[in-house]
This record gives sequence, C-alpha cells and structure tokens, in this order.
Amino acid sequence: MSKIPVGILGATGMVGQMYITLLAEHPWFEVRYVAASPRSAGKPFRDAAAGRWRLRTGWGAGVGELTVEDANDVSRAVKAQGEGRCSFVFSALDMEKETIRALEEAYAAGGIPVVSNASANRWVSDIPMLIPEVNPRHADIIPFQQKNHRWDRGFIAVKPNCSIQSYMIPLHALMQHGYELRRVFVTTLQAISGAGYPGVPGWDMVDNLIPFISGEEEKSEREPLKIFGSLKDGAIVNAPGPKISAHCNRVPVTDGHTACVSLEFGSKKPSLEEIKKIWADFKALPQEAGFPMAPDYPIVLREEADRPQPRQDRDAGQGMAVSLGRIRPCNVFDLRFTALSHNTVRGAAGGGILNAELLKHRGYL
Amino acid sequence: MSKIPVGILGATGMVGQMYITLLAEHPWFEVRYVAASPRSAGKPFRDAAAGRWRLRTGWGAGVGELTVEDANDVSRAVKAQGEGRCSFVFSALDMEKETIRALEEAYAAGGIPVVSNASANRWVSDIPMLIPEVNPRHADIIPFQQKNHRWDRGFIAVKPNCSIQSYMIPLHALMQHGYELRRVFVTTLQAISGAGYPGVPGWDMVDNLIPFISGEEEKSEREPLKIFGSLKDGAIVNAPGPKISAHCNRVPVTDGHTACVSLEFGSKKPSLEEIKKIWADFKALPQEAGFPMAPDYPIVLREEADRPQPRQDRDAGQGMAVSLGRIRPCNVFDLRFTALSHNTVRGAAGGGILNAELLKHRGYL
Amino acid sequence: MSKIPVGILGATGMVGQMYITLLAEHPWFEVRYVAASPRSAGKPFRDAAAGRWRLRTGWGAGVGELTVEDANDVSRAVKAQGEGRCSFVFSALDMEKETIRALEEAYAAGGIPVVSNASANRWVSDIPMLIPEVNPRHADIIPFQQKNHRWDRGFIAVKPNCSIQSYMIPLHALMQHGYELRRVFVTTLQAISGAGYPGVPGWDMVDNLIPFISGEEEKSEREPLKIFGSLKDGAIVNAPGPKISAHCNRVPVTDGHTACVSLEFGSKKPSLEEIKKIWADFKALPQEAGFPMAPDYPIVLREEADRPQPRQDRDAGQGMAVSLGRIRPCNVFDLRFTALSHNTVRGAAGGGILNAELLKHRGYL
Amino acid sequence: MSKIPVGILGATGMVGQMYITLLAEHPWFEVRYVAASPRSAGKPFRDAAAGRWRLRTGWGAGVGELTVEDANDVSRAVKAQGEGRCSFVFSALDMEKETIRALEEAYAAGGIPVVSNASANRWVSDIPMLIPEVNPRHADIIPFQQKNHRWDRGFIAVKPNCSIQSYMIPLHALMQHGYELRRVFVTTLQAISGAGYPGVPGWDMVDNLIPFISGEEEKSEREPLKIFGSLKDGAIVNAPGPKISAHCNRVPVTDGHTACVSLEFGSKKPSLEEIKKIWADFKALPQEAGFPMAPDYPIVLREEADRPQPRQDRDAGQGMAVSLGRIRPCNVFDLRFTALSHNTVRGAAGGGILNAELLKHRGYL
Repeated sequence: MSKIPVGILGATGMVGQMYITLLAEHPWFEVRYVAASPRSAGKPFRDAAAGRWRLRTGWGAGVGELTVEDANDVSRAVKAQGEGRCSFVFSALDMEKETIRALEEAYAAGGIPVVSNASANRWVSDIPMLIPEVNPRHADIIPFQQKNHRWDRGFIAVKPNCSIQSYMIPLHALMQHGYELRRVFVTTLQAISGAGYPGVPGWDMVDNLIPFISGEEEKSEREPLKIFGSLKDGAIVNAPGPKISAHCNRVPVTDGHTACVSLEFGSKKPSLEEIKKIWADFKALPQEAGFPMAPDYPIVLREEADRPQPRQDRDAGQGMAVSLGRIRPCNVFDLRFTALSHNTVRGAAGGGILNAELLKHRGYL
Repeated sequence: MSKIPVGILGATGMVGQMYITLLAEHPWFEVRYVAASPRSAGKPFRDAAAGRWRLRTGWGAGVGELTVEDANDVSRAVKAQGEGRCSFVFSALDMEKETIRALEEAYAAGGIPVVSNASANRWVSDIPMLIPEVNPRHADIIPFQQKNHRWDRGFIAVKPNCSIQSYMIPLHALMQHGYELRRVFVTTLQAISGAGYPGVPGWDMVDNLIPFISGEEEKSEREPLKIFGSLKDGAIVNAPGPKISAHCNRVPVTDGHTACVSLEFGSKKPSLEEIKKIWADFKALPQEAGFPMAPDYPIVLREEADRPQPRQDRDAGQGMAVSLGRIRPCNVFDLRFTALSHNTVRGAAGGGILNAELLKHRGYL
Repeated sequence: MSKIPVGILGATGMVGQMYITLLAEHPWFEVRYVAASPRSAGKPFRDAAAGRWRLRTGWGAGVGELTVEDANDVSRAVKAQGEGRCSFVFSALDMEKETIRALEEAYAAGGIPVVSNASANRWVSDIPMLIPEVNPRHADIIPFQQKNHRWDRGFIAVKPNCSIQSYMIPLHALMQHGYELRRVFVTTLQAISGAGYPGVPGWDMVDNLIPFISGEEEKSEREPLKIFGSLKDGAIVNAPGPKISAHCNRVPVTDGHTACVSLEFGSKKPSLEEIKKIWADFKALPQEAGFPMAPDYPIVLREEADRPQPRQDRDAGQGMAVSLGRIRPCNVFDLRFTALSHNTVRGAAGGGILNAELLKHRGYL
Repeated sequence: MSKIPVGILGATGMVGQMYITLLAEHPWFEVRYVAASPRSAGKPFRDAAAGRWRLRTGWGAGVGELTVEDANDVSRAVKAQGEGRCSFVFSALDMEKETIRALEEAYAAGGIPVVSNASANRWVSDIPMLIPEVNPRHADIIPFQQKNHRWDRGFIAVKPNCSIQSYMIPLHALMQHGYELRRVFVTTLQAISGAGYPGVPGWDMVDNLIPFISGEEEKSEREPLKIFGSLKDGAIVNAPGPKISAHCNRVPVTDGHTACVSLEFGSKKPSLEEIKKIWADFKALPQEAGFPMAPDYPIVLREEADRPQPRQDRDAGQGMAVSLGRIRPCNVFDLRFTALSHNTVRGAAGGGILNAELLKHRGYL
C-alpha cells in the first residue's frame, strides 16, 4: 500500500515540528505538503526551519526539500490535493482563534479534511473532539457536519487540550466499568513546551513557577463534558458530569504535564484493587485495531511511592501512554492519584496522528 | 532591657542557620548558646559552620566565637542556663523522631523551655502547636503540661509543618468571621529547602518534579485539626473539621511553598468581596502587640492574574507574610485561591521565633 | 540639600525598573521623570508598569504617579528640565542601536546630560566609558565632547558591558601595582536577566545552556582596551593590551555573571599572596569619596573551595561588589580565578548610578 | 556466535545502571553477573535496584533475576567465570580510591580482565588509558602488564575522565594531520550526572552553579598527556604536550558536558576550512572495524551560531559522538570552539563498552 500524502499547517512551529518528526517513519501517512506563515512561504522547508528547529530528532526523508506554502492560501492545498500531494491536513496553526476557525473551515470547504490541534473549533457541536480510546464513535458526527455545511469530502475533527490528556483515559475506563464519576478535583503542573516557542520567559522558569495559564482551567473543566457526551440528532450533547475543578500551574519542566487528581464516585464505589486492575488491563479500539501510533497499553501503572515523574515517565509508550501512580484513597473524596502524559506527543501531535488513524480506520480519510 | 540569652539545638543545620541569621538583630533575644551533633562539639561555631553555611546572610556578632556544645548533653545547657547564657532553646534538631521526643523532654525536665520546629512532639495533647495569629490561647496549656510532668520552668511548645503555613491564617480569618469550613482540597508545590541539606538530589530537580513528600500529606491533613482545636480540661481537643485532602509535590524552587486551595463553606457563604476584605484587613495578636517578628499584615493580597509566584513573593513581610492570589469561585466547592509562604522563614525559624515572642508576651519565657 | 531630579529613559524595561528601585532611597538623586515607548506614554507609571514589573522590590514614593512620557520626544524632557523635574537622564533605552545613538545625542544637544547603559555610543572616542574605580579621569573628556558638538550643558557618558564587570576592577588593581597584563582568557557563564525580558525562552533554560550570546565576545575583548586607555588631545586612546579572548555562555541562573579568568603577566609577576593582598585592600575614588552607591570594598575575596556562586554571592556589597575566589596558579598562564558580579546591579543600573555619582563629584552634573 | 558473558562491578550505581542499559541489546556482550556492595548482595538484581534505578530505560532480559554478588568477594566472580557466566568485568566501583585499586588488581590476579571506569588505576604506567579513536595501540601494553604481575588472563584497562571526552578526539584528529598543539585552555560546564547519585544537592542546582569540581582540573590537565603518550619498553611514556589549563564548573544540566576550548598550534597552523574538513571526515579504528558501540562519525559539526547545546546535542550518535560548534579564530591563541559529549554514555559506560570492543578486537578478551 502506498502511503497517504498529508499536509502540515503551521509546519515550522513546535507542534508542527513534532508532527513532522513523528510522521518520519509512519506506515500509513507521509508528509508531502507543508504550510506556514507568509514569511516562510516559498522557501524550502530546510531553510524555513533553519534556526527554528527545537527538537532533538530530525525530519523524514524529503521533507527538507518541500517548498513551504502560505497556510492562508487554501488554493495551494487544493492544487496539491489534485496532484496527489495532500490528501488531508494536520492543523497546528498558531494564530488568532477566529482566524483559525475560518481557515480550517475554508480547508474543509475546499475538500480537504482537517485534523486539528487548535482550540478554535472545539465547541462547534457537529465537530468531534476525539480521544480514540475514549469516544471513537464521535467520529460519526462527520457526515452530519458535512451535510450541515454541504461539504463533500472535507470536514474538521479536533483533539482536546493537552492538560486533560493524562486523566481522561483513566476516568473513562472507570466509567466504562459502570462507576459514575460525580466530582473531580485536579491540579496540574504543566510543562513549558505547552506554551510553544519562545513561550514562557526563562526569567520566570528558574527558581519559580507560574500559578496561572490563560484559558487552561476553563478548557479543563468544559472539554471532558463534550468528550463524555453522546451523539444525538446530528449533534454531540454534553454529558451532565462529572463536575470538575481545575487549578493549572506552569512549572520548570520541558515536557510532561503532571496532574494531581481526586475523584468522587457515585453510590457505587470500586475498591483500590479493582481500580488498579481496570487501569492495568485497559485497552480500547486503537489497541485492538492496531493503530500504528497506539501504545500497547494506554495506561502504565507505577507502583513506586514517588512516580510518575516527568523526566522519567513522559516517554512511556513512546510518549503516547499515560502514567499513573500514588493511587490511594482520598481524605475528602473517594480516590486520588497522580497522572502524567507527554504534552507534545499524546497531548498534541501524537494525539492528532492517532485521531487521523481512527478517522482512516472508520473510513473518513 | 538586656536581651534574653537563647540557645539553638541543631545550630549547624539549615533551620539552625536560619534561626541564627534571623536572630542576628533581634531586639528581645540573643544567641548565646549553640549545640549540634557530637562531631561539631568543642569547636568554635565559626569552624563548625565552615563549609556548611548555606545562607546568603551571615550570623550575628559573637556567634562565630561560641563553642558548639553536644546537643545530646542536656547538662551543658543547664549549666549555661545557670550562668545566664541560655534562658530557653529553639530546637531545630534533625534526628530520629523518638530521639528528638526524648531529648526535648529532657531539656524541659532540666528546666529549659523548648520552642521546637520538630514534628516529634506535635501530637502530645498537652503540648501546644502554635501559630500566633491563629491559636495564641493554646499557650495556656503550658501550666497543665508542667503540672503533668512536674516540671518547674521547663516546657515544650511546637510549631506545625511548613506545608500548611500559607493557608492556615487565611482559613482562620474566615472562620473567625463566622464562616464554617467543611472541606478543603489542597495541592502543594513545595520548595527544595523544605528537605534540608543536602536534601533532594540535583538530578531529581532539573527538568523534573517529585509528586511525593514522605509524611507531608498526613501532617497537612491532621495538624490543622489540633490548631483549630480547643482547650478542655488541660488538654487540646481537636476540632471536628474541616476535612482536608492534600497532594504534596516537590518542585525545582529554592524557597517558597505554593498551595492551590479549594474550600467548601458551611451553609453560610461569604462573597468574594467579603473574603478579600476579611483577608486584606486581617490582623491578630502579633500585629496588635507589636511582636518584632510579626509582619504588619500577615496576609498580602495580589491582584495580578499570575501571582503569587515563589521568587517574587516569598519575601513579603520579610518572609513572614503569606501571599494570596487568584481568589475566585471554585467549580466544585465554593472558593479557590493560590497561597504562598516562605517555608524556612514563616514555615520554620521565623515561625519559631514568633512563637517565642508569643510565649514571652504571655509570660512563659 | 534638596535632591537632584533625574529622569529614566526606558523606565518600564528591566534595567529601567532596576534604576527606579535602586534610586528609591538615594540620598542625592530622585526620580521625577520617566519616559518609555509611545504605547506607554500618557499613562501614570503605576499603570504602565502594571503586569511588567519583574522585581521583588517596589518603586520609590511618588514614582507610581508620574506620567510616562514618550522617550522619543526630547522636547518633553527639555520642558521638564526647565521646570526643575529632570536635571539629567539615565538611558536604559532598548531600541535599534542607531536609533539610540541619535536619540542620546538629541538629549545631549537639548542640554540634558545622558548617563547611559546602552552600547550604542560606547565607541565614540570623545565619550567616556566609565568604571569609577578604574578610570574616573576619563570623565574629563566631557568638556572636549561638549566643545566638539558645541553642546552647552548636555553630554553623554556610558558604562561598559555587564559581562566584563566582574574582572575589570581586579585587573585594574593589579595593573595599578605595576604588573603588566599581557593576555587574558575568560569564559563567562552569564545570567538570564542580562538578556532583558522576555529574553531567553524558558524552553532553552531548563536542562540546558546556550554557548553563544550575540555580540558579547566582541564587547568583552574590545571594551577593556578603551577603559584602560588614556586621554590624549581630547580623545580616549585605547590601551595596547591586554589581549583578551572571551567565550560567552548563557546559563540557567537568574542574576549574577560568573567568569573563569586566566591571566598572563609581563615579566614582573606577583605572588599569590601579593595578589590576594592587593585585591583585599583595594579601594578607589568611590570608596574614598564616599559615593552612596559604592561598596565599602569593591572586591570581596572568598576563601572557600567552591565560591563564588551566583545565588550566594551576587548580593555582596548590595550587588555592587565583585566576588573573587579560586585564586590559584594557571597551568598555562600565570594566574587563574573565578569572578562574579551582579549583572543588573553593578553590571547595569547600579553601575550607571555610580557613574552619575562620579560625574556629580567631578562637577559635570 | 554466542555472546560473551560479562559482569558489572558496582551494578546498582548510576554508571552501573548505564552499563546494564547499554548492554541490553549488545551483539557481542551479555550481562550475566552483577556485583555491588555487601548490603545488596544475595538479592535478585530486580530487588536491589528497586527504588535506585534512575534511568528512563530498562535493563536487558534476565538481568532482573540475577543474584547480586558482593563486589568485594573476588572468589564469586572467579567461580562465575569457571561456570561461563563472567568472562570479564566492567568496573563501575564507587569506593575509596585505594580500595578500588586493590580490588581491581585482585580481580585481574584472579584471571578476570577488568575494563574500568574508575580513576584509581589511571596513573599506573603499564595500564592503558584508552579512547579507541585516539590511542588503540596502547592496548598492547597489556602483555607487559600481565608479565609484570605474573598474571595469566587477567589485566586492567581504564578509560579517562568524562570531562575531557568532548575534545580529545578533535585534538587527536588535528595532531594526526601533523599539527602540533602547544597549549590548550578549556573551561568546562559539566552536568549533574557526572557526580553520581545523590551527588550534587538540588539546593545548589537551582538558580546557581558551582565553580569547582574536586580533582577534575588536575585530571583534565594530566590525563591527555598519557593518552597522547607512546609505548616504550613496556611502559606508556607521557607526551610532552600540549600544556593544558582547565577551569571546571558544575551547571544545572542533567547530562552532557560542555567545553569551551582555545588552542595554540605550533608553527604550522591549519585554516578554519581545513580544520572543519579534518573533523567532519574523521574516522578511526572503531568506525573502520565496525565496533557495535562506535558512532558512524565520532565528530558531529554544528553550523548554527548557538550549538552545540546539552539537551539538543548530547544524544548525537546515540550519545557516543562529540558535537562541535562555534569553530572560529581565537583572539589570543589560534582556534576556539565549543565541544559537547554525553558524560554518562561516551564519558562513562558507553566509553567503557567501546574499550571492551577494542580489547576484544585486538584479542585481549
């Protein structure tokens, strides 16, 4: 099978770079189209990325020679699609929210599916916000979306914010076993890379932390409700709960968001042993269908008293697994634990690729 | 008035050093006696501290020339007391808990009051665990303690753990205004200095955090109940609440413990404006009586979106004030905020000195 | 004596903030005029600085209420001078070099002396580049400068780059005692604050260092030659040596530039003991004349094997002294040592104020 | 070919762990014997390493089940050798120097070759200190060593200190092309892992650096002379030069030692272009003979202005290549550049394994 040619919007940014790195040896997809801001347009990617490449790993064969296109010019992508160089795009755009929303719609209208990392379109009710282990069925909103817009092949699918990735799969696994979740307290200790580059000033990240990340708490409290929601009459209807309270902090860690989580169950409460077993055994569609980007087990349990730690555990499952530790009773609610996930792999580009694998699996790509 | 001569047990450790620094210009107390482990005993303090002094600031006049005594040898302190060189001691001992407990009792039995930072004696029901702005009346358990032990002048008074200092005064201020506190969630991001020296390895504190501090969560959940408790029949009876759940983390910050706090009030709930006013206006005995170590206002409110931050705010009130910010409604409970205090000043040596000032004020020293 | 009213150009930047902080209680000078970019102009300083204030310390009485002026509009400063609100200005401008050069000249032409931190005018031969302990006599170029430009009261005086501050005074002290310096190797480990704010990205300053600072090595190699130079026929003539090689690195330290220095003397070589004595005893005009900003001793010797260290030693002499340690023979040249100075105090605003004190002392202000 | 069974002395320490990790998939060697301190002896390695494993990567199949032996008991290793479980040992012992020296000799006397990381035996004239790209012929001192001691199969071979690894290969490459090196200045910025675990306290590695590493400068100045030396009459005779001056600093970086180097050539001086070509093209025996641990090119040139950087470049060549950048003329000597190598891979366990590959290649193992 020849690989599906894909494009990257925002290819020179940090998330764009991570997409290119992670796709370098992907068995299904191949980067054949890169787009960025007008000032990079027209240059070979090699030159546009020079001095801006922030990753230790390099790019795949041929990517350096691709000519960077202007991401604002949808017609270039349409042309590339016609020439077999861009079947769909990953959007890692970093612009004003309204601009991104309009631009992603324009790509979809042009017949180009958009698998997006941006938050701009997350709250449109016919756009699925996907975590393939949690709500793969939400992909089936796509035909309604296409019908609503009279789009033919194009559509938009998004992923949720990086800050919630470490606990959404564990919460889902418990709910799947019939345990209602009433309330959740979460305090995050988030990595610098989540703010892009140059992002957080070095002056603020030595002997310091910042107890605030703009918009992050609101996203952390709202997005799970859509993800846990259900399809009804061509729209995704939010779940009624759980109710979530989030405190979000920036700490001097390069990669890896940590979350301290406390949960209140409904009247039916699992034992610690049952919880650990549910988590250790958890597998879902990406594992069962063998998606290339899927970790063998999406949840890794750590038994040590002082794990997970960002530097030690962020690369679990090639950055696609979440690590859980310190699983213990909560003194106020029922359960507490510490969760960790790699924010630019599972929380950004890796999660986007897994979404594309799901969409391909279900026939939308 | 000539100054009261005081001794420091554990004088060469980090908390001991901080005591010596903070007492360098104290108007009431003067360090005249220093004790440490047997291997330092017999040396001038200057030599014993050489290569172990971790603070930017120096020690007071004459301290360098004091001969270090063996902290295990209570008779040396008793002799010094007889000679007018050691009216009472600050205990910054760093040993096995049982050893500290016995040793502090031996000093008290020898007629030497012990104002302690150690956790060893915190749970003895006739020993007060003091925060002078919160429970100054608990000092009045001391006569009962002396009677129970048939001690004449000696006694033991302790301070609580550093991790709870940033939010105990704010919680107390709300309770004092008649607002019941039912439940509290707190996640701490604690500084390295809390673990002493050498303490946390550098390897663990670069590009990393540790989601665990041994014993810290238990202390954070239990100690407030004693501090909020009441004197009854010669013992301190724990308060019935609030119920507290604590997640404690170590982060790469030198000084300054940050706490993310969510509160549930009883049926009577103050408005945000009222809360801010209560906190901004709060003063208590240390302020009213003009204790030298007391900050003008024990609570500093920050209005900026991203404060308090450890490096910027830990020195508020010379390290004795707590800084509060991000005061906002909680999505699950009623109120949430971020609190910060300097863990080796308010949370350790400075808090110990303030306790001694209270005890002097009330006539016990 | 009433205080001399001074202005700050670039008042909202990091160096401008440091000027305002350090002048808060200055006995000679008082900030009465603040200027910044057009977008801040017209606002009270309190508002313009809101959310941009990066220092732990606050500003002096009355500064918050000053109206920020447009730094590009010299006429505002001239008017303020006429009204007795701006006798001279400290320039902490952060713009294109050519713009700064022209603007500083315009202030001088307008009759307003400029004491500058900027590098723009450092290489003009009739502008003195001052370290008051080293080349106070260079101030006497000012009448020639004024004559060359037909300026009446106005002039420009500058300070050198922050990276060389830690070793210029020690080198000068040795030269003053008759020891020729032939060659110098220096490797700097420079703090983040040297790059301003936002400056170096946090992503680059966790588990990392940057072995390059643009323009810094060139300045480190050239500026000492002017500072060690001599006045001749109304111009400063560079000294012929020493020849300097500099490697400049950025490291994850907030404040405090460290330098590892190796020296080759001429044929006459002092012993280690003599060197230490020269340094420990060194005092110069600022000390002798009692300049308010001058440290008692400009050089602090550390005898410990592992000092100076940035966090421990940067505040020596209120940030105005340089700390030297590890004084030992060099295996290739004659002498090596480690030097440290506070880059935003001695290396920036504090050094600028000391220059103004010198200029006042010599009658130019 | 079945793999050669090897032992690790000091298997639970940080360097021991790195050996075990790097050997997990080694094509020639297989860890079959692990030894550590008496308190670990008798336990399965899995249990002895529990809570002490500091690496992100795991150990090879079967290692967890090995019983840890007492490293002081040579007879255990001799027995294991007899049973085909320990053909030779890697020594990553962390004890008193004299103890290590005696113990390594005891293993060699027992017939067990010792490939050592320790510094204890580096200055014995019949023990080779090897960098396989630089002085592979020094291995031929081994028969003399064996004869001197009347050892049959056993011998000792060592590797040099981690601090010099980044520039020894580049210096050698230039010398090999006929360019004499007269003098070298080097300032190192060394990573935390070089001090083992717990090593440098976290308190010292936040907003700070330490300008001193005990013994490191002496090693940096002396070891190159032996490595560049020649075999003569059964002993290694030091090279007469180059003369080296080293300043060694500890900085807050987990892995990767950076060195700022200035070189003075003899009368014949290569151009920058020639130097770059020599380095870019450099290959030696490990590359030509295809040693498994050898990087394709031992030197990686970086053209960017601000590279090499520790986090970005330490993993070049799987941690076995050195990265060079900022190659430019020196203002005092002839050439300067920045060099970086991974201190626990090339600088420790990886370098030890490469030595063993060399010794196997030359028939000594």
